[in-house]
Amino acid sequence: MTKAIILTGDRTTGPLHIGHYAGSLANRLKLQDSHEQFLLLADMQALTDNAGDPAKVRRSVIEVALDYLAVGIDPAKSTICLQSHLPALAELTLLYLNFVSVARLERNPTIRQEIRARGFGHAIPAGFLCYPAAQAADITAFKATIVPVGEDQAPLIEQSNEIVRRINAGAGKAILPEAQAVIPSSGRLPGVDGKAKMSKSAGNAIALSASPEAIAAAVKAMFTDPGHLRVEDPGKVEGNVVFTFLDAFDEDRAGLEELKAHYRRGGLGDATIKRRLDAILQALIAPIRQKRAQLAQDLGYVLDVIRQGTQKARERTEATKQEVMAGLGLFTL
Amino acid sequence: MTKAIILTGDRTTGPLHIGHYAGSLANRLKLQDSHEQFLLLADMQALTDNAGDPAKVRRSVIEVALDYLAVGIDPAKSTICLQSHLPALAELTLLYLNFVSVARLERNPTIRQEIRARGFGHAIPAGFLCYPAAQAADITAFKATIVPVGEDQAPLIEQSNEIVRRINAGAGKAILPEAQAVIPSSGRLPGVDGKAKMSKSAGNAIALSASPEAIAAAVKAMFTDPGHLRVEDPGKVEGNVVFTFLDAFDEDRAGLEELKAHYRRGGLGDATIKRRLDAILQALIAPIRQKRAQLAQDLGYVLDVIRQGTQKARERTEATKQEVMAGLGLFTL
Repeated sequence: MTKAIILTGDRTTGPLHIGHYAGSLANRLKLQDSHEQFLLLADMQALTDNAGDPAKVRRSVIEVALDYLAVGIDPAKSTICLQSHLPALAELTLLYLNFVSVARLERNPTIRQEIRARGFGHAIPAGFLCYPAAQAADITAFKATIVPVGEDQAPLIEQSNEIVRRINAGAGKAILPEAQAVIPSSGRLPGVDGKAKMSKSAGNAIALSASPEAIAAAVKAMFTDPGHLRVEDPGKVEGNVVFTFLDAFDEDRAGLEELKAHYRRGGLGDATIKRRLDAILQALIAPIRQKRAQLAQDLGYVLDVIRQGTQKARERTEATKQEVMAGLGLFTL
Repeated sequence: MTKAIILTGDRTTGPLHIGHYAGSLANRLKLQDSHEQFLLLADMQALTDNAGDPAKVRRSVIEVALDYLAVGIDPAKSTICLQSHLPALAELTLLYLNFVSVARLERNPTIRQEIRARGFGHAIPAGFLCYPAAQAADITAFKATIVPVGEDQAPLIEQSNEIVRRINAGAGKAILPEAQAVIPSSGRLPGVDGKAKMSKSAGNAIALSASPEAIAAAVKAMFTDPGHLRVEDPGKVEGNVVFTFLDAFDEDRAGLEELKAHYRRGGLGDATIKRRLDAILQALIAPIRQKRAQLAQDLGYVLDVIRQGTQKARERTEATKQEVMAGLGLFTL
């Protein structure tokens, strides 16, 4: 029995935070035994909207790799590899760009939304418009059939599958498998300020390397229910940032449901629920922070992990590229 | 003294014809001693508007290589290399796409004109829109400073130089040289039917492997001056296809000027000028056809030429890619 292949990864634009942990890292830890998992350090994709700051993209390669290893990604089970050092991904991207129209890329809902979010307007870098083809190259080069993504990224997988069907039709055989977008049931963790997206640049994130003091301060500053003025008042759970975080990280589900009921009927102070969340986050992050600090003392090891993973990924992606080129009937030397 | 580097080449969409000879091949023969010349068999670029017919693109790789060798390109002086087998070109293309906006690509006059000419409308393949970045990658990967192009292609070199300036600015040093478009003074040879462009698909080309009969038939069918009904009538030289071809191929310039004067004042029959052109084209093509037929019996040699040239080009382009990535401060393993 061969294991199903998962492609996942992160743009290298900064260290990861507990939003990444809740949204994807925890899931990767679960899946690394049952699946063949490739984790892409996506530095080339990071450049599509960070061409002006390649130094940040470079620094973040090590940061993200440290985060992976610190949370428990095991390089013997999961392959950590560096996108910019996998030429077959660039070659397949360029090939796929011939099988997708500009109009189709512009219609992609994810691209439309991200163009708006980034305020690109007409100055959108061509690399950014083209990144659905690059993502199709990433997915297909590994022959991944499972791609865990946020809900807003699902159209990218559909775009990838369209390209797969065109390549397979052109080759007259099923060289590439279609992939399935797997959207986590948990949904996206908001920022500590309650805003929709946790991000380092918005200053509303808790890093995976956060100090005990930073965690405590972040929890202390969290919004709860602005109508919950006195302990004895009934409080709202929905939209209450502390409960949103407890939903994501509290493993004592029964205890949490009791707590919510108590809060709703009144008599439970914000200080109490914050103490609970603080304890949970401290317990989650302490071993990650500690392991991350140890690993940071041994960057040679981290580099070796990336080198070996990239070498394995290079063989895999190169083989797929050859198969696609030959399948389409292109010249091979 | 290092020689200046020329990048040139052809899209592999069919065998070459005497239009290519007049417009570029003859020039390459002249330059191969004084310059370091790379000839790119541009199969990836051919795919940007031939994705539906990769078999034609594949077949044409050998056809174009045969044409190069048959006209006298010497692989010991000029490097013949295969675009699809130079990963650094794809990698640099993807990188450069982040340094050019979609709007800038859409404004490119060459792209606008070719989109119209091909009737793409909104279905323009993304690869086609992006090919100025791919061409910038081709030029810069070889650090070419001279790029012979048709007049309509000059904006592509300007686009490439814009990218060069951005990369150099990002790196804080002049890693890449700007290139100069060299536009042949001869202008473009029309088709044998007098239409602006000679092309195999338009059926108005004389192939470099044309048989004596095919050459004779093509010359016989050429338009001259429709007002030149009797031998004794004065005839027009301008717009007369036979004279356009004589201008391109007749090395006896003084004799040709006399002939033109005679034709203008009357008394010179079309049969006479056609005999002269036929003799010149037969003499030009006979040795090419013969050498091409010999080479076609030894495809192993032709493949070796492409393999060795591609290997040399791979080292060159890989080195430039590394230099650009490191210069921008990207991660290097």
